[in-house]
Amino acid sequence: MSKIASTFSRLVRFIPKSDPSKVLIGEPVDAQLDVGLAIYKGQEVSVRPFTGSSVLTPGEATTGTEVVERLLSPLAQKEVGSIRCIGLNYVSHAKEMSLALPDYPVLFMKPSTSLADPYPAPTILPKLTQTDNTGDYESEMVIVIGRDAKDVSESEALDYVLGYTAANDVSSRTYQMNQSQWCFSKGFDGACPIGPTLVSAKLIADVGKLQIRGLKNGNVMQDCPLTDLIFSVPKLISFLSQGTTLPAGTIILTGTPPGVGAAKKPQEFIKSGDEFAVELLPHVGTLINKIEHQ
Amino acid sequence: MSKIASTFSRLVRFIPKSDPSKVLIGEPVDAQLDVGLAIYKGQEVSVRPFTGSSVLTPGEATTGTEVVERLLSPLAQKEVGSIRCIGLNYVSHAKEMSLALPDYPVLFMKPSTSLADPYPAPTILPKLTQTDNTGDYESEMVIVIGRDAKDVSESEALDYVLGYTAANDVSSRTYQMNQSQWCFSKGFDGACPIGPTLVSAKLIADVGKLQIRGLKNGNVMQDCPLTDLIFSVPKLISFLSQGTTLPAGTIILTGTPPGVGAAKKPQEFIKSGDEFAVELLPHVGTLINKIEHQ
Repeated sequence: MSKIASTFSRLVRFIPKSDPSKVLIGEPVDAQLDVGLAIYKGQEVSVRPFTGSSVLTPGEATTGTEVVERLLSPLAQKEVGSIRCIGLNYVSHAKEMSLALPDYPVLFMKPSTSLADPYPAPTILPKLTQTDNTGDYESEMVIVIGRDAKDVSESEALDYVLGYTAANDVSSRTYQMNQSQWCFSKGFDGACPIGPTLVSAKLIADVGKLQIRGLKNGNVMQDCPLTDLIFSVPKLISFLSQGTTLPAGTIILTGTPPGVGAAKKPQEFIKSGDEFAVELLPHVGTLINKIEHQ
Repeated sequence: MSKIASTFSRLVRFIPKSDPSKVLIGEPVDAQLDVGLAIYKGQEVSVRPFTGSSVLTPGEATTGTEVVERLLSPLAQKEVGSIRCIGLNYVSHAKEMSLALPDYPVLFMKPSTSLADPYPAPTILPKLTQTDNTGDYESEMVIVIGRDAKDVSESEALDYVLGYTAANDVSSRTYQMNQSQWCFSKGFDGACPIGPTLVSAKLIADVGKLQIRGLKNGNVMQDCPLTDLIFSVPKLISFLSQGTTLPAGTIILTGTPPGVGAAKKPQEFIKSGDEFAVELLPHVGTLINKIEHQ
């Protein structure tokens, strides 16, 4: 087994201005552009399309360029399957929540129906979350599995990584705290926006060199290097794949750093009209979500 | 909205003796036959096939019959999506586990990759579960959703039910008890066998009239009427659909009655060579699993 030799560096999935009935994938022409931020600012984003529309099977690069009409999640709902999420994977976040460090990665899941697009798609809070106003954000780095993985050792684990993106693990804290299990309070439609780009593992040899930030209406709420992870990328993939097939397309949300709204004093939850940005730099860019009530 | 007018009473999905490269669906000729038990005993099971191979879109009944070569799960992995499972939904099971009754349904999930076929397919325990020998069974009644459901009221909930089947919520107790979340310890490949038949809701107007039993190597370990459910079928569907789309094909494992291996004195876990049978009568039949080690 060897690392996945992706034909791209950074991919976006999008609807092109030239034909809004199509879904395309492609590589942004400006290799340094923060695609999420550019879309948010209304700037024109040019992309060199690949054949096909799935980042899992990107096909060949084509000549010419397309302009993004609407940015989509890099993977589609039907490609991700059950979404894996790790709780408590930053030392400093466990501390702020007054929780002991786990012995193993703590796994919960979101259904594929929670997967959602970046801005301009709205991030919808369901009525249950509005009732007690405890909608919360969690900025997360995401591993994208590129080939079926089962019983993978830590030393082989990186051979299964297609790349990385960012996510907001949108949560309803009252339901989360009132229940022993987290799947309901984090599984609502739209509770898993991802993007803006899928960055090939060849650009990110060491996630420890990434910095993740979460900004609410422009104010920095979370700011942490990925060196703070309790369980590394190889450890997560190896553990989650024991006895369990992680099909190509599986995404793993790797936990959130300190600074979630529920841990702020006073608490700061998200509500309709708020804008939340997950910034994962370098390469991935900024995943922007505009919050709306159902 | 009205109840789903299914064209069948009981459906099985199977590979026919006439052509082992095909997957068919159909209605057992003997309307009273316990299909799971008959297959286990090596009896010939005749089925009147429907066109198509998905119980979600069964097509038309055809003339003639086919004989079952191999019995399959009534729904395929690609049809079920993220599998919903309810923890603690029998009053008497909560008591045996010394756990308080929940205020809301407790939701966890299994990935679709855990879905598995009845006997003769083996039920595989992964190495992690063998190490400490705490593999366990949980006999469960399963709701099959037949049309996309979101924000459904309790009074409308039964209009979304295609039918019912049985499952074994195979669990690895050491990992379950060592972690706050249950998705890892119950999500292994093969940890969700279902079957043997999918029974139309028109045959089961009231699940309270069903009786569920779990038998290990022929010994009755679990035996409980469905009247013991804490949260009813309409309550479960309504709650789980709040803010969340349950696509057609979603299956909901509704919790297990008392008598799991971990609660026995002394404890009785499952291991290679054991046979476990989930019996859901009348109509559904017996889901038999032969346990094997990976």
